Amino acid sequence: MSCFAIGVDLGGTNLRVAAVDTDGNLMEKITLGTQVARGRDAVINEMCEAMLSLMSKYSARGTMCGVGMGIPGIIDKRTGMLRESPNLPGWHDYPVRDDISHRLSTEVILENDANAAAFGENWLGAGRGYDEMCMITLGTGVGGGVVLRGGIWLGMNGMAGEVGHITVDPNGHPCGCGNTGCVEQYASATAIMRMAREAIAAGEAPELAKLASGPNVEFSARAVFHLALQGDSGAQRVYDKVGWALGILVGDLVNVLNLRMYVIGGGVSNGWQAFAPKMFEELRKRCMVYAATAPPDEFIPAGAAAKVSSQQPPPYRTIVTRALLGSDAGLYGAARLPMVGRSMSR
Amino acid sequence: MSCFAIGVDLGGTNLRVAAVDTDGNLMEKITLGTQVARGRDAVINEMCEAMLSLMSKYSARGTMCGVGMGIPGIIDKRTGMLRESPNLPGWHDYPVRDDISHRLSTEVILENDANAAAFGENWLGAGRGYDEMCMITLGTGVGGGVVLRGGIWLGMNGMAGEVGHITVDPNGHPCGCGNTGCVEQYASATAIMRMAREAIAAGEAPELAKLASGPNVEFSARAVFHLALQGDSGAQRVYDKVGWALGILVGDLVNVLNLRMYVIGGGVSNGWQAFAPKMFEELRKRCMVYAATAPPDEFIPAGAAAKVSSQQPPPYRTIVTRALLGSDAGLYGAARLPMVGRSMSR
Repeated sequence: MSCFAIGVDLGGTNLRVAAVDTDGNLMEKITLGTQVARGRDAVINEMCEAMLSLMSKYSARGTMCGVGMGIPGIIDKRTGMLRESPNLPGWHDYPVRDDISHRLSTEVILENDANAAAFGENWLGAGRGYDEMCMITLGTGVGGGVVLRGGIWLGMNGMAGEVGHITVDPNGHPCGCGNTGCVEQYASATAIMRMAREAIAAGEAPELAKLASGPNVEFSARAVFHLALQGDSGAQRVYDKVGWALGILVGDLVNVLNLRMYVIGGGVSNGWQAFAPKMFEELRKRCMVYAATAPPDEFIPAGAAAKVSSQQPPPYRTIVTRALLGSDAGLYGAARLPMVGRSMSR
Repeated sequence: MSCFAIGVDLGGTNLRVAAVDTDGNLMEKITLGTQVARGRDAVINEMCEAMLSLMSKYSARGTMCGVGMGIPGIIDKRTGMLRESPNLPGWHDYPVRDDISHRLSTEVILENDANAAAFGENWLGAGRGYDEMCMITLGTGVGGGVVLRGGIWLGMNGMAGEVGHITVDPNGHPCGCGNTGCVEQYASATAIMRMAREAIAAGEAPELAKLASGPNVEFSARAVFHLALQGDSGAQRVYDKVGWALGILVGDLVNVLNLRMYVIGGGVSNGWQAFAPKMFEELRKRCMVYAATAPPDEFIPAGAAAKVSSQQPPPYRTIVTRALLGSDAGLYGAARLPMVGRSMSR
């Protein structure tokens, strides 16, 4: 009889709950609005209801081995509580893990959402077959997760893989964290919009200005990307800056960790075509170890690396590639947590 | 009956061979000039002779468990050969490990010298009692080593911990590696001399100019340090730049790895008093995780951290401190390698 686990991805907008079997097959996914405004207890009740319905529905199909939850914020692993989560006010000092574990009579493992996404891509996505990888998630902010020896590398207090706050320009744009020139200030969706507005204000991007003032099109990172794809130099310069920052970041990561696999995901990674050329250019120039180990064709299509690696990883190749699982990465990674147990997450 | 190992530190200037027991006691140390000019075979012969004499002398005191060697350069762990070593011409394509192993009839483990130093400080120095730490070695260049779960983290091909080539200023000084603004261009002895000369040329450092043109004093990183200690603002500005670069570097390392312990060693670390204040200032400002976990008094005297940690590591404290073993760190680390075996070094 096979096993399955319940994965939860508690985003700011959506709450998703899924049953996933140990082969990585999605048995069923339930998507709910998080409705944080209705309060913590309402969210917890709705979440537990969804989990219980999946657990009961699939109990005949296999053993339920536990619940894994990806949560935006800082988690105290020892107490199973949230120490900080801007998107979940009222969750502080509430024993998330123990309460849900008690209600469902099963083991519950909490994980930071960026770490869960890294674990998901490592299990079933672009990092499949690699014992070690680093994921960079480009969304509203920039997050990340490091997988070492098949487990999430948490560091001292779960804050490892905070790659969004690596300094790429010491005199650069101020960041909410107190630093100046964090990679998040150049490679997040928020940063893309800011850089586009800066280019408009400087009179350097007439097409972007048209886009921003047009009544019918949403002015978004995606819209800037489409303009870059159409050959607009103002929009392309914005995405070049994204690539520049990511090239420095990945170079730093290669120098510290020297892993085989770096996976770039999150919504902004859809702009890959617009930022990847500059990223690889910077990376080759700035990182000797990368230049010496880059694949002959570094623009590996997403998935190709995973296919090769599931047979036998190529020796001494540093691969930088796109994520494969989209917004489901965190859900899969969360479900994987109880399957491998606590020992893999340190 | 106790055990001991032979450690070798093959520097550019000195070749040092020591017998060290499993408690970390130095039984005997032999220091020889490397005399690279006399050729590879002469060096190997002299080295093997020294090792054999120690092995025979102490054979009655315990079991000899193997030889560990710290070598400057890039080592191919699979073949036991040097892939690149600017200081050891003629060693390329020579099977160092297997030849010495054959001559001495014992296991030989090769390691990069910066990794060996990290392993030594982890065993007996400032990182004692910490399963995880990162060492930054400030010498002619800047090197480093990462220890995770009690073993050296090598990465894909032994190039992990190359912290000297982390970018701290994307538009900064050109580095020999092809990048611009590597930390090595601001925090090595070579960089200190360059920055001092730049300050003199700009007319910003009259005391440094006097020092450089004086006939009786050697113009060195150490001399610049002493001038800074005497309150000279020109010399202090040079060391402020060292601290600035190290603050950015350590912040990046904390964001990626989130370790408890960062150890700064190498000759330039003797200038700690001159660069540490600026380093901690930058680090607190630039790294939220550090600021949240810094010890109340971050200027921990070298050794104090080790003392605390050997009892019980304080929870959630990020410690940045000076190395303790000086130039012997690599020798101790090398001797430690055969004691823990290959499995710990990955």
